[in-house]
Amino acid sequence: MRLSRYFLPLLKETPADATIASHKYMLRAGMMKQNSAGIYSWLPLGFKVLKKIEQIVREEQNRAGAIEMLMPTIQSADLWKETGRYDAYGPEMLRITDRHDREMLFGPTNEDMITDIFRASVRSYKDLPKNLYHIQWKFRDEVRPRFGVMRGREFLMKDAYSFDMSAEEARVSYNKMFVAYLNTYARLGLKAVPMKADTGPIGGDLSHEFIILAETGESEVFCHADLVNMPAPGDVDYETDLQAIVDERLSYYAATDEKHEPAEFAKLDKDKQLSARGIEVGHIFYFGEKYSAPMNAKVMNREGKEVIVHMGSYGIGVSRLVGGIIEASHDDDGIIWPKSVAPFGAGIINLKVGDEEADKVSEDLYDRLAKAGVDPLYDDRPDRGGVKFSRMDLIGLPFSITVGPRGLKEGIVEVKNRATGDRQNLSPDAAVEFITSEFAGFV
Amino acid sequence: MRLSRYFLPLLKETPADATIASHKYMLRAGMMKQNSAGIYSWLPLGFKVLKKIEQIVREEQNRAGAIEMLMPTIQSADLWKETGRYDAYGPEMLRITDRHDREMLFGPTNEDMITDIFRASVRSYKDLPKNLYHIQWKFRDEVRPRFGVMRGREFLMKDAYSFDMSAEEARVSYNKMFVAYLNTYARLGLKAVPMKADTGPIGGDLSHEFIILAETGESEVFCHADLVNMPAPGDVDYETDLQAIVDERLSYYAATDEKHEPAEFAKLDKDKQLSARGIEVGHIFYFGEKYSAPMNAKVMNREGKEVIVHMGSYGIGVSRLVGGIIEASHDDDGIIWPKSVAPFGAGIINLKVGDEEADKVSEDLYDRLAKAGVDPLYDDRPDRGGVKFSRMDLIGLPFSITVGPRGLKEGIVEVKNRATGDRQNLSPDAAVEFITSEFAGFV
Repeated sequence: MRLSRYFLPLLKETPADATIASHKYMLRAGMMKQNSAGIYSWLPLGFKVLKKIEQIVREEQNRAGAIEMLMPTIQSADLWKETGRYDAYGPEMLRITDRHDREMLFGPTNEDMITDIFRASVRSYKDLPKNLYHIQWKFRDEVRPRFGVMRGREFLMKDAYSFDMSAEEARVSYNKMFVAYLNTYARLGLKAVPMKADTGPIGGDLSHEFIILAETGESEVFCHADLVNMPAPGDVDYETDLQAIVDERLSYYAATDEKHEPAEFAKLDKDKQLSARGIEVGHIFYFGEKYSAPMNAKVMNREGKEVIVHMGSYGIGVSRLVGGIIEASHDDDGIIWPKSVAPFGAGIINLKVGDEEADKVSEDLYDRLAKAGVDPLYDDRPDRGGVKFSRMDLIGLPFSITVGPRGLKEGIVEVKNRATGDRQNLSPDAAVEFITSEFAGFV
Repeated sequence: MRLSRYFLPLLKETPADATIASHKYMLRAGMMKQNSAGIYSWLPLGFKVLKKIEQIVREEQNRAGAIEMLMPTIQSADLWKETGRYDAYGPEMLRITDRHDREMLFGPTNEDMITDIFRASVRSYKDLPKNLYHIQWKFRDEVRPRFGVMRGREFLMKDAYSFDMSAEEARVSYNKMFVAYLNTYARLGLKAVPMKADTGPIGGDLSHEFIILAETGESEVFCHADLVNMPAPGDVDYETDLQAIVDERLSYYAATDEKHEPAEFAKLDKDKQLSARGIEVGHIFYFGEKYSAPMNAKVMNREGKEVIVHMGSYGIGVSRLVGGIIEASHDDDGIIWPKSVAPFGAGIINLKVGDEEADKVSEDLYDRLAKAGVDPLYDDRPDRGGVKFSRMDLIGLPFSITVGPRGLKEGIVEVKNRATGDRQNLSPDAAVEFITSEFAGFV
C-alpha cells in the first residue's frame, strides 16, 4: 500500500480520556475512531490487525476440531426466557423492541441460541462430540465504557460451544480448547496464563481465564512465576489425550482475584510468588446441564436412552486482543507489532520523494517485498524525515527501510528492527532478502 | 471435512413458509436456521458460501482501489439527526435506547457515519479521491420479512463510500465501482445487468441497480436482451478511463420498474425487448453533496479554497447473493453451486463404509483432493446409497466421486458433474487429476 493512497488519519494530540497505552496508540495511530461511548469504527490500519488476529483464532479453532458458523447479532428474548437469563442478565444486556413490539436483544453471548440450534437437529450419540463456534460482534451495555477496546460496548468475540454425552467426555472437549487457547496466544506473540476463575453470568463449576500480565490490567492475579514463560504445546494431535498437557499447567498455582487462596499462594517459594495486574483475553467454562436441562437438549445414548447433553463454552475477546497485544508490546514511541499480526510487514521510507534514484529504489523495494508476500507500506508522502520516522515508529511495523540519496550514493539503505532498535546498512537486494527471511513462516 | 464430524442438519420437509427455491434449499440443505422472523443463523455449510462470496466481493473492491475498514453495527442517533435522516427513515430503522437513555440505532446504512469519519481528518485535495468500504451486518426492520435471506431483517452488506473534489471526479469513482461490480458478479457465476434505478432513501440523481434475472425476483425489470450476456470487463486497469466500458452498457435500454419508459422500450426490436422478474444484488449511487453539505465535509482545493466534497455510495447484498445464486442455479434435486463459491469443491461418496478397499480408496481420494486445495467433503456415514446421492445433489457440490466395491473390482470410481449430470468412470488417479484440473484458477 502507498501511504499517499491509504487512509491513515494520525492524531497529534492524545484525547484526554485515553489513559492507557493501547487506547492512546490506537487513536493516535489512526487504527480506530470513537463513534459513541465504547463504540468504535475500525479504520483501515486497525481493521487489518483485527482481521489477522481473527484469522489466527480461526485457524487454531479449526485445528482443534471446532466447526465455524455464524449466529446473528439480534436475538429474540424467547430463548433467554426459557433459560431464565432474560431477567437475570441485568442492564448490561441491550434490550430492543422491534416494530411489532416483540422483545429482542443484541446478543452478549450465545449459550441459549446454540442450545436451541443443537436441540432442533441432533438426536444421537453418534453425532457427538460437537464443538460449534462463531466470531461475531457482541454488545454489552457497560455502565462506564473505558480503556478503548479493552472495555468497550460493541466488541468482537470468538465463542465456541461444546456438546458431549457426559461430564468425562465434556472434559475432553474442554481440554482441546484449553490447549488450542495456549497455541493461539503463543502465535499472537503473547504469554497468556490459564488461571482458575469465577464463572459469573455464564455459570458452571469448572472455569479458567487466560490472562496476559500488564500493568494496566483490570484484574489482580496471582500465579507461580514459572507459568508465565512455559512454552505453548504447539503441534499436538487433538485426537489424543491432552489431560497431561493441561494437568502440567494446573499443577502450578494460578488464580484470579475471586478464586485466590492466600494460604495456598503463601506456600510457594517467595521468589515464585507472582502477584500482578492482568488482562483477561479468554475465558472457558464447563457448565454441564445448565442450559441443556431447561431447554431439554437431549440425545439417545448407546443404550437407546435419552440423556441431557453436557456443555461448555469458550470465549476469546478478539477485539480486546488488539489492545492487549499493544499493552504487552509498545514503547514511548509507539506500538511494536509481533510479526504475526502486524498490519504491514515492513515500511519503506523514501526520504526524498521526487529524487529519481530514491523513487526508483523505493518503488523497486516496494514491488519486491509485495511479491514476497511481506505486504509493505510505502511512505511516498512529501514530508520531512523526522515526521516519517515518528510516524513509522508510532504505527509499529516490525521493520522499516529508509531510502535516501546519501545512502544510495554508497549503494545502501538502512534497515531498522522496530522491536530491538537495531539498524543495519544493506544493499537494497540484501534488505529484501533479510526482511523476506525474517517473515519465513509468517506469509 | 468428514461428514460424520460435520454439522449438516438437513431437513426432510420444507417448512411451509418457504415458497422460493433459495429459501427452501437453504433450510433443507442445513445452510441456515431461522431464529426469529427474518433473522437467521448461518450453519456451517451456509457460512462457508457466505464467506466465499464475501471474499470475492472484497478482492474486487480492493482491485478497484477501495480501502477496507469496519464501522460498528450500533450507531448514535446524533449523526442521523444532523443529516435529517433520523426522522425521515421510517419504521424500518431499528431504534434502540441504551441504559443511559441515549438514542441509538442498528445501522441500516452508513452514509452519515462515514461522512463524520471523513470530515474529522481529511483536509486537502491531496488526500482525494478516497473510497472506503466495509462488509458489515445491517438491520432493516422489514414489516413482513420473507423469502429467506432475500428479504431478511439482519443481512450482510458491502457498502463503499467515495469522496471526490467535483462531480466530474466523482463520476470516475462511480465508474470504478460500476466496473468492479460487473467483475464481481461474473466471478460469482452470475449474469447481472446494470439498470437505471430510483434512489430511494439514499438520495441522489445518478443510480444503477445490478439485477439478476430470476422468476422469483421481486422487481419487474426491462432491458435490451443483449445486455444479459455481455461479458464482464475482466482484468482492467482501474487507473485508466473506464467511461467507454460504462457507456457501452448504458447505450442499451435497461430500467427498473420505477424508471421504466415504455415509449423508449417500445423502440427496441421486438425480439430484443426483454421484460422479466429480477433480483437486486447491488445498488450504486452518486448523490453529490447530500450528506457532505449538511455535515460540512469540506477540503481545500488546489486554489486554497474550501469546497464541499462529492460523494457516492455502493452497496452489494452479500447475504442476499447466497440466495440469488441459488435462484439462478438449481434444479429439482437441489442447489448447483458455481465453482467459485461452492462450500466444498467435491464430495466423496463411500457406498460401503467398513469395506476395507472402499474405505482405503475413499480416504486416499480425500487426502489427495485436500492437498490439491479442492476441499472435499467425505460422506463416511453408514447410510444407504440412495440417501447419500440425494444428499449430495441437494447440497450441490460441483463434483462428486462415488466409490463402491463393485467399481473398485474393475479399478474405477464414478465422477459426476452436478451441473451437467455427466458421469464418467475413471481410475481414482484420473478422478483426482480431472477434478483438480477443473478447479485450476479457483483454488
